[in-house]
Amino acid sequence: MTTWNLPEDRCFDPEPATRRAALNLYHSIQNLPIISPHGHVDPALFADPHASFGTPADLLVIPDHYVFRMIHSQGVPLESLGVPSVDGSPVERDHRRIWQLFADHFHLFRGTPSGLWLAYEFKFVLGIEEQLTAHNAARIYDQIVERLASPEFRPRALFEKFNIKVLATTDSASDPLNAHRALRASGWPGRVIPTFRPDAVVNLDTENWHAQIEALSHASGVAIGDYASFLTALKARRLAFRQLGAVATDHGVFQPQTASLSEEEAGAIFQRALQGQLQPGDAPRFTAHMLMEMARMSCEDGLVMQVHCGSFRNHHPDTLARFGRDRGYDIPVQTEFTHNLRPLLARYGTDPRLTLILFTLDETTYARELAPLAGVYPALRLGPPWWFHDSWNGMRRYFDQVMETAGIYNTVGFNDDTRAFLSIPARHDLWRRAVANWLAGLLVRGFIGNDEALEMARELAYDLPRRAYRLEQPPATLN
Amino acid sequence: MTTWNLPEDRCFDPEPATRRAALNLYHSIQNLPIISPHGHVDPALFADPHASFGTPADLLVIPDHYVFRMIHSQGVPLESLGVPSVDGSPVERDHRRIWQLFADHFHLFRGTPSGLWLAYEFKFVLGIEEQLTAHNAARIYDQIVERLASPEFRPRALFEKFNIKVLATTDSASDPLNAHRALRASGWPGRVIPTFRPDAVVNLDTENWHAQIEALSHASGVAIGDYASFLTALKARRLAFRQLGAVATDHGVFQPQTASLSEEEAGAIFQRALQGQLQPGDAPRFTAHMLMEMARMSCEDGLVMQVHCGSFRNHHPDTLARFGRDRGYDIPVQTEFTHNLRPLLARYGTDPRLTLILFTLDETTYARELAPLAGVYPALRLGPPWWFHDSWNGMRRYFDQVMETAGIYNTVGFNDDTRAFLSIPARHDLWRRAVANWLAGLLVRGFIGNDEALEMARELAYDLPRRAYRLEQPPATLN
Amino acid sequence: MTTWNLPEDRCFDPEPATRRAALNLYHSIQNLPIISPHGHVDPALFADPHASFGTPADLLVIPDHYVFRMIHSQGVPLESLGVPSVDGSPVERDHRRIWQLFADHFHLFRGTPSGLWLAYEFKFVLGIEEQLTAHNAARIYDQIVERLASPEFRPRALFEKFNIKVLATTDSASDPLNAHRALRASGWPGRVIPTFRPDAVVNLDTENWHAQIEALSHASGVAIGDYASFLTALKARRLAFRQLGAVATDHGVFQPQTASLSEEEAGAIFQRALQGQLQPGDAPRFTAHMLMEMARMSCEDGLVMQVHCGSFRNHHPDTLARFGRDRGYDIPVQTEFTHNLRPLLARYGTDPRLTLILFTLDETTYARELAPLAGVYPALRLGPPWWFHDSWNGMRRYFDQVMETAGIYNTVGFNDDTRAFLSIPARHDLWRRAVANWLAGLLVRGFIGNDEALEMARELAYDLPRRAYRLEQPPATLN
Repeated sequence: MTTWNLPEDRCFDPEPATRRAALNLYHSIQNLPIISPHGHVDPALFADPHASFGTPADLLVIPDHYVFRMIHSQGVPLESLGVPSVDGSPVERDHRRIWQLFADHFHLFRGTPSGLWLAYEFKFVLGIEEQLTAHNAARIYDQIVERLASPEFRPRALFEKFNIKVLATTDSASDPLNAHRALRASGWPGRVIPTFRPDAVVNLDTENWHAQIEALSHASGVAIGDYASFLTALKARRLAFRQLGAVATDHGVFQPQTASLSEEEAGAIFQRALQGQLQPGDAPRFTAHMLMEMARMSCEDGLVMQVHCGSFRNHHPDTLARFGRDRGYDIPVQTEFTHNLRPLLARYGTDPRLTLILFTLDETTYARELAPLAGVYPALRLGPPWWFHDSWNGMRRYFDQVMETAGIYNTVGFNDDTRAFLSIPARHDLWRRAVANWLAGLLVRGFIGNDEALEMARELAYDLPRRAYRLEQPPATLN
Repeated sequence: MTTWNLPEDRCFDPEPATRRAALNLYHSIQNLPIISPHGHVDPALFADPHASFGTPADLLVIPDHYVFRMIHSQGVPLESLGVPSVDGSPVERDHRRIWQLFADHFHLFRGTPSGLWLAYEFKFVLGIEEQLTAHNAARIYDQIVERLASPEFRPRALFEKFNIKVLATTDSASDPLNAHRALRASGWPGRVIPTFRPDAVVNLDTENWHAQIEALSHASGVAIGDYASFLTALKARRLAFRQLGAVATDHGVFQPQTASLSEEEAGAIFQRALQGQLQPGDAPRFTAHMLMEMARMSCEDGLVMQVHCGSFRNHHPDTLARFGRDRGYDIPVQTEFTHNLRPLLARYGTDPRLTLILFTLDETTYARELAPLAGVYPALRLGPPWWFHDSWNGMRRYFDQVMETAGIYNTVGFNDDTRAFLSIPARHDLWRRAVANWLAGLLVRGFIGNDEALEMARELAYDLPRRAYRLEQPPATLN
Repeated sequence: MTTWNLPEDRCFDPEPATRRAALNLYHSIQNLPIISPHGHVDPALFADPHASFGTPADLLVIPDHYVFRMIHSQGVPLESLGVPSVDGSPVERDHRRIWQLFADHFHLFRGTPSGLWLAYEFKFVLGIEEQLTAHNAARIYDQIVERLASPEFRPRALFEKFNIKVLATTDSASDPLNAHRALRASGWPGRVIPTFRPDAVVNLDTENWHAQIEALSHASGVAIGDYASFLTALKARRLAFRQLGAVATDHGVFQPQTASLSEEEAGAIFQRALQGQLQPGDAPRFTAHMLMEMARMSCEDGLVMQVHCGSFRNHHPDTLARFGRDRGYDIPVQTEFTHNLRPLLARYGTDPRLTLILFTLDETTYARELAPLAGVYPALRLGPPWWFHDSWNGMRRYFDQVMETAGIYNTVGFNDDTRAFLSIPARHDLWRRAVANWLAGLLVRGFIGNDEALEMARELAYDLPRRAYRLEQPPATLN
């Protein structure tokens, strides 16, 4: 039997002095509570005290596009992996067969972050000692089924075991937040909070935009008939999110274009959208303008503003048609910040009320644009390495390319950004190891002293996200 | 006498555990046969059993733009290095003087891949122990002349000594492939195969495009009078290439633009080209369309499709006018894949019949675009680091930036891509060392286990190119 | 008391063999004279033998945008840091309070190049053993005041103590160079030379362009009434700079666009500029043309041509309005060299009279464009990592990405490019450590031998800038 390869000092540089220093720093932060200020876990998991994770395939394969995209890349159709279709085409329903396919292709994850996370989840979360192979797949499936049946593997129990201090979900502006309400009403003390994401309504070219606007009207109780009432509805929803604990908004944009339109122009575009008569250029101009409006509202209500940039979503049309969104076919593009963000930064970049956190999929912007911007604009902070770059090497490149110019204090620690709840401790553990290893490298080279390294480790693991996301500030006045 | 500095454990990280692991992994793959599925060696070297390499300058200086561009960069005119002119201007004909110039400037190659390859060639191929200097240049020239005169230094003998399992050349669509025919007819068992490269005919703005079309007509036996007969001729040539063992096509493109034109539009553009009446935009649109057509034909005939992107060729006009193409003045440009490849991938990206291998000169696309694309589209694979990036650091960056997202199984091992036949073992040796060193780094950090490392090493050195280029499949039906 | 953490072997890789080799190489170059061929130190510091540096805040905080931008990024207004305003708004005048703010925020510099430079300056230049903290700020302020009062801390004395062989300043084309004249007239032997920077007059959209042209007329004694007299004035100024020891020009450009206009077109655009009737596109076309003209004049008069590319200056409009230029709000942008430089390189790239040194803020161009260009065009050299990239990791990335393709001999050693005179030895020391560490890495991996490493270290620390900037050539004939 081959066991999971997870030595205590894994990931760290092999040079003995560095490894010792890294282990020492890691031990100082290893058990700090987890702050997860941005992610995509379903809040319903916690709303119902008896919620469970389903089958092993439900837990580790079907919802995780990191996992099924890799297997698919070697020619396995998505339907064989049980990925639900949206067009009614049949997909595999036998979760044991899906699990066997997963095990058959497990070698594909060698040297990948998914491989690391999964090993951690099997061993430390599920208590499975044996490495998954094509041969033991069925036996391990049974073991996991057994684990998941026990009360200590219910979502709330794991939330507590994982020592999560706060977990933010991501919710559309028109979401009635029923799960969040139920969760609060249940009296369970876990801090699970929503995040306000208005993409579907501020992007006028959203496929079902009119339905989204209707949903926003409904959720806010504001009849949206023009631009002014649209803003009123957004403001009302921001307030509702804040009342349920939200500390932040989130904005997914293709390019971080920002622009300030006159009230008249914004109103006219919005009117054309309502009438289904958008003109070319209307939609991106309006989105660029709405980023400015969201910054303005953040100055007023204190919600931290997150912007995630640069994903060409649903790149493969057939897969979108058959399986819908979030199926692994999202591909990064070149992103430009220096020009694009200037209108917003010119107006709000030095406003002490604003915290704007940027995320990129284009690593070339780290040293060239983002670190220089965050290293001067008081309102600006850099988010951690994101998505494809949330990996050991991605973190190394981030530390290498960001920190000399931005300093750590203009960054915000880690986000796991995951919909795979079980991977949360694995991901934070990898970040903490990367932090420890990076600081150990600085320490053994004499760039920093040991006390500084210990302080910086704690900042990067815990204090920076706590402060950046204003998690311990009294809520802003709910006017 | 200073000897070549080529310790057994060269290149490997100095940390002892890593170095031991790297050496161990290297030894496991060091002697595997060489698969060279893409390159520019002249097949005539093997067609004639008595072919020789010429003088030492012919062997190592005159045909190798890596070498003469570096010396030229310090002010030495290309004519002094014996680079043949195309406009009749005189060039140095005394190969001993060329060799002396080469030796005088040998320090320029310190820390460069050419420096490493040359050291390997001098010592391990030519058996010259002494480092080349300005002082011993003449003596070493004589030693090489002596070596080259012996039968064991004939190209076929070296091919066998190098343990080359397959060597692919690159040949234009209209090439009659006489050397390949002669080679096959000779009964020599070395597997030297052509690769179908139709750039000159699918790029309507090729300088001598009409002559190229005529040559294609001639080679294919198809009178090309319209778009339909052009396609017929291409299909016929693909068949002829396959009959001589070809397994792949190759396409050199400036930007990897792909687009699908209607039959009518493609036909109309082709007609304008025949009549010398191209309109602005015709040529790039047609090339983009022809990439789609080539993918379609690959689905039908099973030829693997290679695309090499992003070289601004012949950047210095005077050098082009005086010395022609491939004179070291090819400079990379920014390249975009996510948008450009989408039409092709939308249609063929999940087709199980297609293998599309991408090469880039823009390393920023590794982590941002190429690894995410190859990590999901079943038809897509990533070629190894290419040209300026085929170096120790280039390989490190490739492993670092590609593998976490794509996994090794969406890559294809190594290409030497060289016209310098003598450098082939040196280049593959460097790749194998880079593979061993990268995997050793993963091993000593606990990312993978030893058995996994051994398997991955063999994949990267041998099995991945063998499978990706379909080298052991029965030839597709030659319909 | 915590002392500055500056071990003798700081920065070097911790692996013992590498560290030993690095230390050995470093010792071989540590005490070579400093060549500073590009920077922004005020020549007035040396013109007057009794000039002093002012207060500690004048010395280390107020003029150094690296320092105040970082503190500002955490919400401290520039006015609190004593940054002078241009609009009359009040700024802090109590330098002890500015110093206290600096000390309060000193942790922000952890792991940054400014942190390293400052530690060096405190300990090795100012002789302060104790680390600066919020608590000892006042005491250290007093210590520095005491130091600065002594004759050995006058600028000329430090220039000599720093062992500076040559220091180039940067001066506008219309600068009367009075400080340089006074400096020469004083008989002081320090070699402080001007550099010709004509940006303000060749960029027709310079805010106060007419005043700049008037100043150029005045300085040159040439009445500028048309394009021809403009060229005459520039030529006259280049001669005047050369007579005061200048060896180079410098050009700050947004994108390195080059283009050759006809005499007529250039003349017509210049005329429109004089008449205040510029048309869209005039200014960038003229600037692109003037880069060609500057290359032409460099071929004639032998001034080395430097081009610094890619900074979006004064990104924050309010800060520009209140505090003027160079306030930390300069942000890099993507830069393109392959297309943009082609017209200039097509004409002058192989001219043996020209040396063109390029600087970038876009590191993605190192391996993709700049190293391939410098590795073939005889006139081209690459400047060292610049501005945000003049850091330990920035240097590592530069060596990693440039040297394999360009070779060290197409680079020019180091520039400190600083206006902070006290940081000059700290910056050159960091470069020399980076050189030693990089070469040690090559040495222990067997890429180069020890003698080669020693030679390369000396080249990178001393000989390359000496030769590239033609510092020991007899001045070109002053015709």
